[in-house]
Amino acid sequence: MQKPAELQQALREAITYASRYTKDGQVASYIPELCKTNPSALEACISLPDSSICEIFNTGRTKTRFTIQSISKVIALILALQTQGIEYVFSKVGMEPSGDPFNSLMKLETSDERPFNPLINTGAIVTTSMINSEISFKEILAFSGELLGDADISLNEAVYLSENLHSARNRSLAYLLASKGLMTSDVDQSLDLYLRMCSMESNAAGLAHMGLVLSSGGVDPVSGKQLIEGWIVRVVQTLMMTCGMYDGSGEFAVRVGIPSKSGVGGGIVACTRQGFGIGIYGPALDSKGNSIGGIRILEYLSFFLNLHGFAQDSDWKF
Amino acid sequence: MQKPAELQQALREAITYASRYTKDGQVASYIPELCKTNPSALEACISLPDSSICEIFNTGRTKTRFTIQSISKVIALILALQTQGIEYVFSKVGMEPSGDPFNSLMKLETSDERPFNPLINTGAIVTTSMINSEISFKEILAFSGELLGDADISLNEAVYLSENLHSARNRSLAYLLASKGLMTSDVDQSLDLYLRMCSMESNAAGLAHMGLVLSSGGVDPVSGKQLIEGWIVRVVQTLMMTCGMYDGSGEFAVRVGIPSKSGVGGGIVACTRQGFGIGIYGPALDSKGNSIGGIRILEYLSFFLNLHGFAQDSDWKF
Amino acid sequence: MQKPAELQQALREAITYASRYTKDGQVASYIPELCKTNPSALEACISLPDSSICEIFNTGRTKTRFTIQSISKVIALILALQTQGIEYVFSKVGMEPSGDPFNSLMKLETSDERPFNPLINTGAIVTTSMINSEISFKEILAFSGELLGDADISLNEAVYLSENLHSARNRSLAYLLASKGLMTSDVDQSLDLYLRMCSMESNAAGLAHMGLVLSSGGVDPVSGKQLIEGWIVRVVQTLMMTCGMYDGSGEFAVRVGIPSKSGVGGGIVACTRQGFGIGIYGPALDSKGNSIGGIRILEYLSFFLNLHGFAQDSDWKF
Amino acid sequence: MQKPAELQQALREAITYASRYTKDGQVASYIPELCKTNPSALEACISLPDSSICEIFNTGRTKTRFTIQSISKVIALILALQTQGIEYVFSKVGMEPSGDPFNSLMKLETSDERPFNPLINTGAIVTTSMINSEISFKEILAFSGELLGDADISLNEAVYLSENLHSARNRSLAYLLASKGLMTSDVDQSLDLYLRMCSMESNAAGLAHMGLVLSSGGVDPVSGKQLIEGWIVRVVQTLMMTCGMYDGSGEFAVRVGIPSKSGVGGGIVACTRQGFGIGIYGPALDSKGNSIGGIRILEYLSFFLNLHGFAQDSDWKF
Repeated sequence: MQKPAELQQALREAITYASRYTKDGQVASYIPELCKTNPSALEACISLPDSSICEIFNTGRTKTRFTIQSISKVIALILALQTQGIEYVFSKVGMEPSGDPFNSLMKLETSDERPFNPLINTGAIVTTSMINSEISFKEILAFSGELLGDADISLNEAVYLSENLHSARNRSLAYLLASKGLMTSDVDQSLDLYLRMCSMESNAAGLAHMGLVLSSGGVDPVSGKQLIEGWIVRVVQTLMMTCGMYDGSGEFAVRVGIPSKSGVGGGIVACTRQGFGIGIYGPALDSKGNSIGGIRILEYLSFFLNLHGFAQDSDWKF
Repeated sequence: MQKPAELQQALREAITYASRYTKDGQVASYIPELCKTNPSALEACISLPDSSICEIFNTGRTKTRFTIQSISKVIALILALQTQGIEYVFSKVGMEPSGDPFNSLMKLETSDERPFNPLINTGAIVTTSMINSEISFKEILAFSGELLGDADISLNEAVYLSENLHSARNRSLAYLLASKGLMTSDVDQSLDLYLRMCSMESNAAGLAHMGLVLSSGGVDPVSGKQLIEGWIVRVVQTLMMTCGMYDGSGEFAVRVGIPSKSGVGGGIVACTRQGFGIGIYGPALDSKGNSIGGIRILEYLSFFLNLHGFAQDSDWKF
Repeated sequence: MQKPAELQQALREAITYASRYTKDGQVASYIPELCKTNPSALEACISLPDSSICEIFNTGRTKTRFTIQSISKVIALILALQTQGIEYVFSKVGMEPSGDPFNSLMKLETSDERPFNPLINTGAIVTTSMINSEISFKEILAFSGELLGDADISLNEAVYLSENLHSARNRSLAYLLASKGLMTSDVDQSLDLYLRMCSMESNAAGLAHMGLVLSSGGVDPVSGKQLIEGWIVRVVQTLMMTCGMYDGSGEFAVRVGIPSKSGVGGGIVACTRQGFGIGIYGPALDSKGNSIGGIRILEYLSFFLNLHGFAQDSDWKF
Repeated sequence: MQKPAELQQALREAITYASRYTKDGQVASYIPELCKTNPSALEACISLPDSSICEIFNTGRTKTRFTIQSISKVIALILALQTQGIEYVFSKVGMEPSGDPFNSLMKLETSDERPFNPLINTGAIVTTSMINSEISFKEILAFSGELLGDADISLNEAVYLSENLHSARNRSLAYLLASKGLMTSDVDQSLDLYLRMCSMESNAAGLAHMGLVLSSGGVDPVSGKQLIEGWIVRVVQTLMMTCGMYDGSGEFAVRVGIPSKSGVGGGIVACTRQGFGIGIYGPALDSKGNSIGGIRILEYLSFFLNLHGFAQDSDWKF
């Protein structure tokens, strides 16, 4: 593995390179509270077993705190697998990427009864309904704090309220799932938990630590504690690879090739096969909902540190 | 890496295990010529840099020859990337898995102008139209012979004729692509080349050799010749991982985790990160169009030989 | 116009003819309460300005009371047009047949921001949300009683409760509409009103009277009172013609050619250009959700009484 | 019925009123040859049993000749019904409005194996394939000449060539239909006939005469000859009412209420229940593909001459 100094250098270059692209993105607008951010902000951290490196662009001294949004779908999946087992979870949600088809025009209702995978809204609402009756939000917050190595993790009340006020579409999805018998606990309560989990607040260092745990087979190298069972890590990493970046997952897999999950708050968590985690904050999003600067950072790091899962040699094109 | 004797043993067990499932599948019926096969046939080969292992179940002494069908899409993609470059190829075809969406119901024409990826029919018709004006079928056959290490590769005339007689749907797709300006050479000629490539005939040993070349960074370890450039191997392996097994690619990635491509003739090519290739023949297909026995063989091997790209430890579930 | 005796004779023949088809249908099953009906029941009434004729098959002496279900969509449309005006109503809902099943949400995602028309679930939820803030259910019940000439019209509490317990899909539709800004009053309240209106209970004689009012330019010939303005009758009759029989409206228009609206409770209301109304009760439904016997009755009457809007002569085919 | 002088007056007012709207439309651009027209042209004719009235706006002295395009779908339907019978025709094509654009292939994939109706491209390609083996184009031209009362009807060779050069999408639709077993004669020949019929050239007076024949139960009042059987007229008029104006048919039915069929060449044929026909030429189209001025002419006439099929009284709104 590269030495910390090399990583720091690469990270600095990556963020400088990526900062040129933030102006082409837009901060999330579907929830008013999310608009109140600096679109050119860009922060990235690498979490190693024994150290941590951060680089900040244009956002002052402190690490910005932001809501993790869809990254919480990974946590819901982990907890659902842990409490319900793999058979049950995947009886209610699939494992397939959900891109729009070219030569198939079938509608939802004709093609499959289940959400395609647990990393899209419908799938995560299903997994959340599974854990809703098992675990309290307080316990989920505690688990998330461990996973992100962030004792300060908390609910952003303002975002949570804003999410609630603009939840009509997600509520529509939840009731559609209920009509198909896919909600395993109360619809409105499950949706409330889903919105709370989206509104959990941490920073890029927290996401980097989460990536580190996933890269370390589920063990937190700092505490030595096994936070996630190995087989769950395998399932989660595979789904992050195929479905983690919304409907840009396929291109991201080709260009970057690191299992990652993004959120519309601007966060990305990535876990490398080299054993370290990467956490990003960059609220300017591309048209798919991924941090536009964050993707550029990961492209740069993948190339210069040879992190792509199918990298062959130095004969890189892109 | 495991020793050949261990691989031979694992392969024998895998094929025995998988043979129980062939009765749940169906041979392809959309082309009459493909129906004329023994549904319980099952053959698997592993190709190592310096040796080759095959196991045959229920099919007599010789290695069955069969048409590679959709596996030719990988060859068309390789040749398109080689002759046209990555920018051009992906200006006409995407990189996204094409699963049907759950919460999106958009039609083709509203969501994207390009086929989703080069490993579905529409995408492969596009890449084939790119090489149609550059390379003759004879040259493609020669290249495929090298890639599969099979000097006897040939066009199965009966299947090719049968494909042609039942090509209305593919012709419809080709003209739809043409109406969007995505065909770069004559429509009917391109479709003819596409059908010829689908009708190329080899065997499981040939597919194993193709997997070996992909696992070896594009170099044929036997001849030492670089058949495919490294960056193309990276792109191709990633797309095989996310899109190689039709709309069962996501589940296959979770359960097996080896970049693979299947064809409705019953073939599968797989390339392991451990540096060997696997070739399968099993014409009984599951509902997605993948060899039902072949998938079981690869599941077994992935588990016992620890081939999954995101395998964490021995704590396996499935 | 035909004399009452001739109508009585035609009605008797029609019901005998139609009774052979009820065994091919199914009573509605999506709400448990609706299952508790006699599938072979068949009743039909003709309401003339000065008299009324009924024929009953297989259901004993009294006129069966049943919930009007989707026929209430016509009442919601009338009241929305009356209170909001044509411009406003059709700014939130279209006038086009959708080609999709009545409870589909597909078109909302694919092609238009508005529901296609006010006679499918999504469209009627929109019109109901318009009247929700204007008129109480008690007032709607009173208006409906006048329209159907049925002083006994009432809410079927058991069906209403059953509807509520199985309202997930409709609630999903309502929140989807809300997410698009198409609900003009509280979502849950509007849905409650929608379900209440579906659960209003009358009989075939009531529906025949409603048909008579529509056939008489909105005037109740008995009381002489103008219940509906003329321009609203024109709009409503046209939409009944193009969209009244779910996704079987086109075929019904060709075969029968009388503006009609059906409900899954087994009711149909039809209004002839000859100035009389027809009301049907036949709970066995075809695959589109229309009374299978009811359609046969109307086909028979259309042919023998020459009721088709585009009938040319006696050279009938079907 | 109104006297000719009144009709002439109404027609003059209608065309003046409508001429203000042509600037909001666009001439068809999908075929280069169709672009070469004067977008502000507007011509309308009324054909009565014993006389004919025309008004021309902005197009000089002579009646412009133009290709009838989709209006030929009505002719193909008439001939298919005449030669194959109603059962057979509607075993291969439906009677339902599709809710989709005229050249859509979506419904073929999603909901039904047959095209939704014979007045959209897919449906008309099916009916054309039925007559292709029965009648020569020359005979069709002769029949069309009688129907339009236009001895000069002819094939516009330039448009036909242009159609052929831009036929990829229609060819795609034809092969998709073939793959479903819905083409009853050679695909390319049937498409050729379809394109020839679209390229038949007449004028507004011809379309008015066609409307007159349809309004007269299929009899040409001039010659006294029965050109179309009565039951076919009923079927055709109903389908014109529900599906004749592309995916704007529902709104047109509400606003105008006269069975009509439009073509992207700018023509509209309309047949009134009052027994006269209307023919329009106005090449500026609205977003659905209907003559934007033509629709305004028909709205005006429907209102002032009380032509709406469900008109109740003078209490008109729109």
